Amino acid sequence: MITDSVFSPVSADVINQLTQILGAGSVSTAQADIDLHAKDQSQHPAHASEVVIWPQTAQQIADVLRFANERHIPVTPWGVGTSLEGNPIPLHGGILMSMERMNQIIKVYADDFQVTVQPGIGHKDLNAQLARQALFFPPDPGANATVGGMLANNAAGIRTVKYGASKDNVLQMQVALADGRLIRVGSRSIKQSAGYDLLHLFVGSEGTLGVITEATLKLTPVPSFMSAALAAFDDVETAVETVVAIRGSGLDPAALELIDAAHAAMLRDAEGIDLTDQPTLFMEFHASQEQSLQAGLEMVKEICEEMGATRFRSTTDPTERKKIWHARHSSFEIMVRKFPNTKFYINDVAVPISAYPELIGYVEELKREHNVTAYMIGHAGDGNIHVEFPYKTAEEYEKRAELNRLIVLKAISLNGTSTGEHGIGIGKMQFMNTEHGPAVDVMRSIKNLLDPNGILNPGKIFPKI
Amino acid sequence: MITDSVFSPVSADVINQLTQILGAGSVSTAQADIDLHAKDQSQHPAHASEVVIWPQTAQQIADVLRFANERHIPVTPWGVGTSLEGNPIPLHGGILMSMERMNQIIKVYADDFQVTVQPGIGHKDLNAQLARQALFFPPDPGANATVGGMLANNAAGIRTVKYGASKDNVLQMQVALADGRLIRVGSRSIKQSAGYDLLHLFVGSEGTLGVITEATLKLTPVPSFMSAALAAFDDVETAVETVVAIRGSGLDPAALELIDAAHAAMLRDAEGIDLTDQPTLFMEFHASQEQSLQAGLEMVKEICEEMGATRFRSTTDPTERKKIWHARHSSFEIMVRKFPNTKFYINDVAVPISAYPELIGYVEELKREHNVTAYMIGHAGDGNIHVEFPYKTAEEYEKRAELNRLIVLKAISLNGTSTGEHGIGIGKMQFMNTEHGPAVDVMRSIKNLLDPNGILNPGKIFPKI
Repeated sequence: MITDSVFSPVSADVINQLTQILGAGSVSTAQADIDLHAKDQSQHPAHASEVVIWPQTAQQIADVLRFANERHIPVTPWGVGTSLEGNPIPLHGGILMSMERMNQIIKVYADDFQVTVQPGIGHKDLNAQLARQALFFPPDPGANATVGGMLANNAAGIRTVKYGASKDNVLQMQVALADGRLIRVGSRSIKQSAGYDLLHLFVGSEGTLGVITEATLKLTPVPSFMSAALAAFDDVETAVETVVAIRGSGLDPAALELIDAAHAAMLRDAEGIDLTDQPTLFMEFHASQEQSLQAGLEMVKEICEEMGATRFRSTTDPTERKKIWHARHSSFEIMVRKFPNTKFYINDVAVPISAYPELIGYVEELKREHNVTAYMIGHAGDGNIHVEFPYKTAEEYEKRAELNRLIVLKAISLNGTSTGEHGIGIGKMQFMNTEHGPAVDVMRSIKNLLDPNGILNPGKIFPKI
Repeated sequence: MITDSVFSPVSADVINQLTQILGAGSVSTAQADIDLHAKDQSQHPAHASEVVIWPQTAQQIADVLRFANERHIPVTPWGVGTSLEGNPIPLHGGILMSMERMNQIIKVYADDFQVTVQPGIGHKDLNAQLARQALFFPPDPGANATVGGMLANNAAGIRTVKYGASKDNVLQMQVALADGRLIRVGSRSIKQSAGYDLLHLFVGSEGTLGVITEATLKLTPVPSFMSAALAAFDDVETAVETVVAIRGSGLDPAALELIDAAHAAMLRDAEGIDLTDQPTLFMEFHASQEQSLQAGLEMVKEICEEMGATRFRSTTDPTERKKIWHARHSSFEIMVRKFPNTKFYINDVAVPISAYPELIGYVEELKREHNVTAYMIGHAGDGNIHVEFPYKTAEEYEKRAELNRLIVLKAISLNGTSTGEHGIGIGKMQFMNTEHGPAVDVMRSIKNLLDPNGILNPGKIFPKI
């Protein structure tokens, strides 16, 4: 049972067995390797595994799982550690399974707009290679997350407003189950109505139901014409109302991002982007004809100005567009650099777009009421916001955690979710019952069915009973 | 266990208990009611239930399931019987649960492009009501299928090439489980990464895991500009190669349909559509600006003519466009009327688009080799084809079933699926192991977990062991 698993330690015999499965160069108990795989980019504390392994084939992954399952040893899969909710932290020690050496493209199906990859490939590395075929995998969480990690956490990012999240851009996977079975789920046929959708059961399950050993992704042709647009507003409320208006207009932005005044100032200073000290919308539009790109830009300009934008700029110049998005993608790192010796508690909630103004208004009110500094960056077009709370002390951390809790509960009360794209990991377990009610029992029963010894990424997703 | 369930008969006491839950006017054992709910539109033979019920609330559905589960009585949900693989035929008798009286819109969230509905509403009726808000639910299987039935079978249709299947257009559902629990799955937030995706586990499960009692659908703004285009070719192979070229061009058709020469002649004669006696592509394009509609039409004309179209016509006139699509939607009925005293064995397979020419070539070869008449209609843009085999005798039926089997095995060998949009129902159970391999065991274990007495739509999806 997942709630009271008693795990076995990784003994010398276990190391021997793992070495037999994987070979000597693929098993390490060196402290440096343990430390490198103990913590992701979140505020959650590190925890050491007992051994780090680097499988190279799906069969090796399956063999390790079968062995670990028999021995009751935890296995936590690891992409590249860019997650933000403690998702791959090996909370119960055991085996840390790095996908670093499974980073190949297996096959590009250019005519089908599909690619089959190993799980450890970075999505940026993948897209760099796909550029030759003028195709790309749209989900873009910013960091060079691995495809396996993105699928396991259903990562999303700035292009989701047009192209969907990871779950919308995968067709088929091979998955290794806890008992060592290797199964295929989904189909390379984009249409399929044949039995239960196991594909989406494993996507977003954060390595708790099985390990993704291979994935066939849906690709999109690189659009012929792209533009970027920036609109600045006097206050965040007006910016957010504009987001709702743009979404309601039928325009189809490829990105519709909100950054607050503080982030705008930081990007101006650090990246030389021509931004005022105001809440700003970052937008991107894609089109297959130049006329429609221009028509879309005119329409969005009109909407922004009608809603009260004090400034609107747009560009179709690729260099300028890339510079703008590079800045947007670097927002978090720029903030971290600007405040040395400061940590950030990162929030991630999403609501239906009509509730976005109320959510953002609530965050602003909380900041005032509690006199707390917080920055905001949001995938606004998706109703998704990240509030970033700086903190230094344990006491400050507790206060930020409480504010995070209030924002999450507000989002859920607005028919939203405790996590738009970071997954449950460790930090959101406490909200599972509030968000899902009795459906959590069904999820738990599926977990117990597929992983009866609870070896797969233990301590995640499910609140303790 | 689902493989050897022994069910209890519907006794007078059972009828009494059902009447207590539902009220007297909602329970019938009249032969006329039994007969009306014994068969869908497929070639599969009718089977009588023992009682037909018409619940009016989610709670009634849950209460009936709890009762039926305790008594080991089969329950088969019923939308409106337009399915094509025997999906709602009550093979083991028991309770036939009609959703006819749960046909209301619960709430339109116009700003969110969402609507919450009861499962028994027809998608055409829904879209007629949504037209006021200039919104629509895109999946369009032709017949006025209920939303609940569409979700249960993951129905698709002619608009899937652009807007996705039913599974891509649903955000949240309420589901009644076999033991009478009511759960909510999914979220009204379009982004969600919170725990297991139970939503997609129930979508496409054909009423074998639970009964959909409510659904919140993703809507799309009615496009400002629409066009229809027709392209005729000397042979079906060229038509199909053109489909691959159009898909590869980056054009984003809202429909891309293939009909064979026989169907083209039938539509011309019955509906007065100006068609030649040739394989013809039916296309639709949607745009928010007129310029991009025109640019798209020019591009597709160029591709069709380069590929060898002998005739290309397009229109932006709404009346003409509707007439063309009305004809396309009526193809099956027109064929049925043209051949009285003839039945049709309907095939439904899909493959990755690059394999579509090989699939269609195989069908043509089979027809020649076996000297058998067959018509073809396909959602070509999705790699989906329906081969329709006319038959009159049991002997002819067997021969058609064998040809269907060969086409399915060919599709699976091309990395495709045994069913693109009709579901497994009765007819495709025999292919589950070939298509999914050991994943079928995982599906079966989930079935046993959620429906241990096997009362939900028994005899479907899973091959007998």
